[in-house]
Amino acid sequence: MREWTASQGGVWWDEDGLALIEQTLLPEEYRVLRPRTLAEVADAISRLAVRGAPAIGIAAAYGLVVALDEAAPSTAPEAGRLLDGAAETLRRTRPTAVNLAWALERVLAEAGAHAPISAASYRAAVFGAARELAREDRELCRRIGLSGVEALGSARRILTHCNAGALATGGYGTATAPLYLLHERGEAVSVLADETRPLLQGSRLTAWELHRAGIPVRVTADGASGALMARGLVDAVIVGADRIAENGDTANKIGTFNLALAAAYHGIPIYVAAPFSTFDPKTPDGSAIPIEERAPEEVLAFAGRRVAPEGVTSLNLAFDVTPHALVTAFLTDQGVLRPPYPASIARLSRQGVS
Amino acid sequence: MREWTASQGGVWWDEDGLALIEQTLLPEEYRVLRPRTLAEVADAISRLAVRGAPAIGIAAAYGLVVALDEAAPSTAPEAGRLLDGAAETLRRTRPTAVNLAWALERVLAEAGAHAPISAASYRAAVFGAARELAREDRELCRRIGLSGVEALGSARRILTHCNAGALATGGYGTATAPLYLLHERGEAVSVLADETRPLLQGSRLTAWELHRAGIPVRVTADGASGALMARGLVDAVIVGADRIAENGDTANKIGTFNLALAAAYHGIPIYVAAPFSTFDPKTPDGSAIPIEERAPEEVLAFAGRRVAPEGVTSLNLAFDVTPHALVTAFLTDQGVLRPPYPASIARLSRQGVS
Repeated sequence: MREWTASQGGVWWDEDGLALIEQTLLPEEYRVLRPRTLAEVADAISRLAVRGAPAIGIAAAYGLVVALDEAAPSTAPEAGRLLDGAAETLRRTRPTAVNLAWALERVLAEAGAHAPISAASYRAAVFGAARELAREDRELCRRIGLSGVEALGSARRILTHCNAGALATGGYGTATAPLYLLHERGEAVSVLADETRPLLQGSRLTAWELHRAGIPVRVTADGASGALMARGLVDAVIVGADRIAENGDTANKIGTFNLALAAAYHGIPIYVAAPFSTFDPKTPDGSAIPIEERAPEEVLAFAGRRVAPEGVTSLNLAFDVTPHALVTAFLTDQGVLRPPYPASIARLSRQGVS
Repeated sequence: MREWTASQGGVWWDEDGLALIEQTLLPEEYRVLRPRTLAEVADAISRLAVRGAPAIGIAAAYGLVVALDEAAPSTAPEAGRLLDGAAETLRRTRPTAVNLAWALERVLAEAGAHAPISAASYRAAVFGAARELAREDRELCRRIGLSGVEALGSARRILTHCNAGALATGGYGTATAPLYLLHERGEAVSVLADETRPLLQGSRLTAWELHRAGIPVRVTADGASGALMARGLVDAVIVGADRIAENGDTANKIGTFNLALAAAYHGIPIYVAAPFSTFDPKTPDGSAIPIEERAPEEVLAFAGRRVAPEGVTSLNLAFDVTPHALVTAFLTDQGVLRPPYPASIARLSRQGVS
């Protein structure tokens, strides 16, 4: 088995076909899934073997190729009907995943635009569109990484939260992209990874991928960030984002807001790394972002074992909103966005990037 | 078995003799230990069946009585020699626990001051001194509670961190004392309890004792405090303290500092509840407080199960220091101390309370 590198991300296509990292087994076991049927791809997506919006979209796009290879249609119209059915199957695996639906539509539209006249040319067009989607995502992450390298200056001791990592994308990740680029250049970057309760994505996934890539990483309790900063152990903070409002208010994994407050108190820069498409022009500010409340059991248990007493419940907010005034800069594929925010964000939006 | 009430604390003496809550089994099981020998008391203290400086001191003090009842000496000098040996055994269970050594010395000195002329009168004097120690601790916590009731005003939705609870004391606890007093008065108090990684004292112990007392309590991830405050769910924060510097800088469980920053940002009062003896006149400010770094495994694993990848370590600071400027007031047995701090603390110190 070849060594995994961050530039591969959580999903890729190689000489053996589609490959997905079985993320439910991490970090105990590194296993690469090789789905050979549409049902296997759909299963991998629905049970979260692959996670992260970009990685899911790429897996679904390649899933269309897997469906064609499995059924081996003999004519272009037959292939077209088969693709429509396969797309519907894949869409149903995660009905609320916007990026999954978008990726499927895009690949089908692009392949159809080639007016394929044979099953073979249809397959070639679908594969080309899926590969282009994966390539673009990796390139987008790389550009986010370049923005990060620029913004970080000489900062090399980075604290991050949750997993906005390579595993969730077609390569490099978002918050992790600057770290991988610096590491590729031979810079001595090191990371403190918040464990990220309740689901421990930092401890399980971020620590895994950075360690695998050879970047020194230490896990810390989420509540320790202020103390670590007070000790002078943190040069900069980088986090990802689930949604960014027009004014820069940022929804991200619970704990990000507290981290931003600690950074602000210590005068340590905190960067939000995200594709420019994460800015939502329909969301004027953070108050318009609905915050998902998840199952109480996630907090009441630890790694599957109940911790809290029977009869006690939890309040489990999945995300928080960091006010834009606390964000030092946004690291995007379109460059570094600095305050004043509504203005710098709007300028890029008007250029039609979003 | 009688119902446990917060006024009992983690250790007490009743008609059946010494009683300790077996805290290593909480919250899964409520079991009351009844040590009948010196070895059993020493064992309970050394394996943390009883925890919290005041509770350990009381357990050790009563342990001297248990030792006398076990050995049944027939003369006062024989009792005296036996007590010296028992104290040495108990002291060795937790060699760095200052309060344990202090409690033993105090009980021995007080009992000796009665110049007991028989084994029976020696036993009566030791028991009286131990019971007085326990009574004073409970009364001290109650006075901290009264300070809290005064400071809280109409605030009833309280967020707390770790377990500065009844379990750790002879009754009521410190940070929890105002909650129990309000609850006894029929006030509708409710609590959000930080789970408190890595050892989960909030989820395991604070949630247990508040729930047991009938106070509504919900557990939350440590990183959620900012989001909970932003939602308007928190009227006030109360935490305990391990050590308070002369200027009010407060060492407490890791995560307290981040909590204080979130409270300050939202203009929500944060109170530090502690006996006045927690102010250390030999510590001018927070920079002089050494911060214990504990075993990395506490963060990397839970209940013996590894979470983080093999080869990855953690940075596990046990405490942090909250700068005094972030503390709204100190709730002490000597009243509520408000800013400006070095002055209000010094005033009380000069009165010889400390």
